[in-house]
Amino acid sequence: MNFKTFALALAATAATTLALPAAAQFAKPEDAIKYRQSSLFVMGQHFGRIGAMANGKVPFDAKAAQADAEVIAALSSLPWTGFGPGTDKAAPTKARPEVWTDQAKFQDHAQKFQAEAPKLLAAAQSGNLDQLKAAFGSAANSCKACHDNFRAR
Amino acid sequence: MNFKTFALALAATAATTLALPAAAQFAKPEDAIKYRQSSLFVMGQHFGRIGAMANGKVPFDAKAAQADAEVIAALSSLPWTGFGPGTDKAAPTKARPEVWTDQAKFQDHAQKFQAEAPKLLAAAQSGNLDQLKAAFGSAANSCKACHDNFRAR
Repeated sequence: MNFKTFALALAATAATTLALPAAAQFAKPEDAIKYRQSSLFVMGQHFGRIGAMANGKVPFDAKAAQADAEVIAALSSLPWTGFGPGTDKAAPTKARPEVWTDQAKFQDHAQKFQAEAPKLLAAAQSGNLDQLKAAFGSAANSCKACHDNFRAR
Repeated sequence: MNFKTFALALAATAATTLALPAAAQFAKPEDAIKYRQSSLFVMGQHFGRIGAMANGKVPFDAKAAQADAEVIAALSSLPWTGFGPGTDKAAPTKARPEVWTDQAKFQDHAQKFQAEAPKLLAAAQSGNLDQLKAAFGSAANSCKACHDNFRAR
């Protein structure tokens, strides 16, 4: 086991341990699925609003961008608790089986996004559009990497 | 117009003004409906977890309760932006027509809940179960009052 594999396994173990109490709190698997979809959808809406500013589609509003980034930061750790055992097909889901068969890789993606969220917030708080663009691009890449690997089209 | 009516109208106007830019950011009415349902569902899950502790169904975990209350506080202002004009029936919804025909009353309920969320957070931060129980009861009443009036069974 090389260092990278070890680090990934460690991250996966930590994430699983942290996720267990939360997973145990879902009354049924359908709730866990709805919970992860709901938290990801809300984040996606606010992420899209920042993206529209970063891409010049709407005027840059520093205050709005900060509020959007705050929502994303507050929600960034939530969805992953909804991917526990038995939540692979209890309700319609685009999550691919690899979420459960390749947990280490999935958790690594989740951790990477969670590291991007506070950076995006810091950039939004700076009020500097260039910083926001850079942080948005980096966070968007972490979203895309996970979607490409773990979400059905 | 007596004081109470005036205060309600003022709150409604403020809320509507605040809500407009956000409402304009939804690509389509279905997104607004999904957004309000998603943010309410996530809040509901965390509120339920606090409730389970407040009602003695699960052991009191001060740290978990604080994390739950933080999520609720972060989301408490969001759902109401998803009840804009034209979002009454673009997708399946339990929202009753009164949300749009009695805006002042609806916004008053929304404001009351938004006032409860930081109180719930402060109680959770205190680490005192009795304070949490009291704040939970008060917040739960504000949820129920709005559901009784504006949500179909």
